[in-house]
Amino acid sequence: MNFHTRKWIKPEDLNANGTLFGGRLLDWIDEEAALYTIIQLENQKVVTKYISEIDFKASARQGDIIEIGITPVKFGRASLTLSCEVRNKMTRETIITISNIVMVNLGPDGKAVPHGKTEVEYVKDRLQ
Amino acid sequence: MNFHTRKWIKPEDLNANGTLFGGRLLDWIDEEAALYTIIQLENQKVVTKYISEIDFKASARQGDIIEIGITPVKFGRASLTLSCEVRNKMTRETIITISNIVMVNLGPDGKAVPHGKTEVEYVKDRLQ
Amino acid sequence: MNFHTRKWIKPEDLNANGTLFGGRLLDWIDEEAALYTIIQLENQKVVTKYISEIDFKASARQGDIIEIGITPVKFGRASLTLSCEVRNKMTRETIITISNIVMVNLGPDGKAVPHGKTEVEYVKDRLQ
Amino acid sequence: MNFHTRKWIKPEDLNANGTLFGGRLLDWIDEEAALYTIIQLENQKVVTKYISEIDFKASARQGDIIEIGITPVKFGRASLTLSCEVRNKMTRETIITISNIVMVNLGPDGKAVPHGKTEVEYVKDRLQ
Amino acid sequence: MNFHTRKWIKPEDLNANGTLFGGRLLDWIDEEAALYTIIQLENQKVVTKYISEIDFKASARQGDIIEIGITPVKFGRASLTLSCEVRNKMTRETIITISNIVMVNLGPDGKAVPHGKTEVEYVKDRLQ
Amino acid sequence: MNFHTRKWIKPEDLNANGTLFGGRLLDWIDEEAALYTIIQLENQKVVTKYISEIDFKASARQGDIIEIGITPVKFGRASLTLSCEVRNKMTRETIITISNIVMVNLGPDGKAVPHGKTEVEYVKDRLQ
Repeated sequence: MNFHTRKWIKPEDLNANGTLFGGRLLDWIDEEAALYTIIQLENQKVVTKYISEIDFKASARQGDIIEIGITPVKFGRASLTLSCEVRNKMTRETIITISNIVMVNLGPDGKAVPHGKTEVEYVKDRLQ
Repeated sequence: MNFHTRKWIKPEDLNANGTLFGGRLLDWIDEEAALYTIIQLENQKVVTKYISEIDFKASARQGDIIEIGITPVKFGRASLTLSCEVRNKMTRETIITISNIVMVNLGPDGKAVPHGKTEVEYVKDRLQ
Repeated sequence: MNFHTRKWIKPEDLNANGTLFGGRLLDWIDEEAALYTIIQLENQKVVTKYISEIDFKASARQGDIIEIGITPVKFGRASLTLSCEVRNKMTRETIITISNIVMVNLGPDGKAVPHGKTEVEYVKDRLQ
Repeated sequence: MNFHTRKWIKPEDLNANGTLFGGRLLDWIDEEAALYTIIQLENQKVVTKYISEIDFKASARQGDIIEIGITPVKFGRASLTLSCEVRNKMTRETIITISNIVMVNLGPDGKAVPHGKTEVEYVKDRLQ
Repeated sequence: MNFHTRKWIKPEDLNANGTLFGGRLLDWIDEEAALYTIIQLENQKVVTKYISEIDFKASARQGDIIEIGITPVKFGRASLTLSCEVRNKMTRETIITISNIVMVNLGPDGKAVPHGKTEVEYVKDRLQ
Repeated sequence: MNFHTRKWIKPEDLNANGTLFGGRLLDWIDEEAALYTIIQLENQKVVTKYISEIDFKASARQGDIIEIGITPVKFGRASLTLSCEVRNKMTRETIITISNIVMVNLGPDGKAVPHGKTEVEYVKDRLQ
């Protein structure tokens, strides 16, 4: 799994108990899944359709740095299924894991359309 | 299911496609689950431990009003399991459903402790 | 008065003294008034025209849960007047009261137009 | 009236109709009233106690620049009463006026205490 | 240099160390530079093109009030160069200085166009 | 240069012209520089001291994905100098470059202290 996006936990990210607010973390994960999908499918119009069960294994505190990892699980006809792990950057402790996030590829009319992709592509290869 | 908290979809809540950003919605749900639990368990120190699969059935657009419903599913020894539905306030269309959100009751040291509750209580009854 | 929307006071909602920032509270009240009006008038184009005096009776602290109540006061020709109370969900202590919030119903051109409503309606009745 | 703080209306400040969200404006006014009071009373511990009626005379749109003006109305024993006007910086059109915002001076224990001020002072004079 | 916009440092503005987050400060400065330029050039379509070196001379803490000053340095053909100082309102301590912020005047097509201005103008004079 | 953190440009990130707000971008860069430094110096208490000139070479629009790259330039005694490039993930177009961002390592008292590091270390190596 490749870990890209990193976040620095600031006061605005905390719940009332002073630990990382779970909702904020889910917000970050959904953004990462969306942008990973946009990059792979070369289409800005994608939506989150399904997220499998989420297990909060550990929390994070103010000042911690976390990193979000995404791996493709399956290229469907009009969808892309991803798995996700968020961990503490310094200790490598797992904070959350999600086995399946299903993203759907949309056409201009907002309906699902085939994306024609079957495997991971790297932007640098496309640009060569 | 009782629907309490309502949200008005504003530009700051949209994804880059102009529909409600899924991560924002999950943020709102997690807050609602936390505060429902705090009210029931009479303890401000609670955390989200587990969220079962999430199915995004419909989206919402700028200007829509949504409402978030929470129902208790099971009072565990140190936990409270909730189910959640979010729907469009005007059309009653379901936007998202989550069968199980497990919230854990924490003691001052941050470890799970029994909460002693076995059924829904109403604040108005406690205050009488 | 029916209390619907609830908020969990998080660090991002505090003023520099560590209590609930008054401006944040007014922001929440204005949103609640707007969405209540949209639901009643069945029109997404409404604006706040007037708010009567606001008395801050108590504050709230990080971790508190508050609830916002709205009641219709008067159905005008192109307006709807509401009253509002915000209270601490757990203690029922009143935080703020506002006697009159005048919301105006707008047409597509942004000008006030009659809304044709004279009493509270429930969405569930409209959908039946 | 002296106008100091200016805001540039961005998408995140809009309501669902695409005009300046009233709640956001009230948030800005409350911050301006608080900081004006802190400067005058030389005490960081102040709270908003009362806001007189608010008349929304005009709105603002994305890209507009507004400025917020504050004038002291009365130095009480433990309070400071302010009036406020918000206007469009380019057209000078009045957006909102508030005759009385009562701010209270607090001691370390959070209770109102006399502030000993009777007139406007300028920071530059204090520093000389 | 004229100091206009003021900010009250709240928890949401802090970095994980509890001092003013530098990125938040740069965000505020860029907004102030943009709106100063819009006022001077009487054109809402302006962009930041260049910012000279930024020296963080002091920090600010929760509860502090800062003020942002902007002075025009040079009116170019399609640009306006500004200098900026941010200081603590109460102590006059300098927090940050920036010698040159180059703002560019854009036409409807998003390309640089001459603005025809050669000196500072006051809105009140334009309106007379 | 390694590019890690990615952002999806949403409506809340736009200026009033509908392009990426420069201040938001500077906010993201400062966070990335801070967390990179925390990871390298193994100290959560770091501050931004200096940022060299910033050239805005291109903008970004709603729906674009950008990525932020950081490279260490020099390990000082109590400082770490970084360079930064932000580019469009899909087109590789450079949006902004900054040659020198000087971060300072602080002790518990908030004063600069030597960090003892002289070269890039990888967290995975430290954990082995």
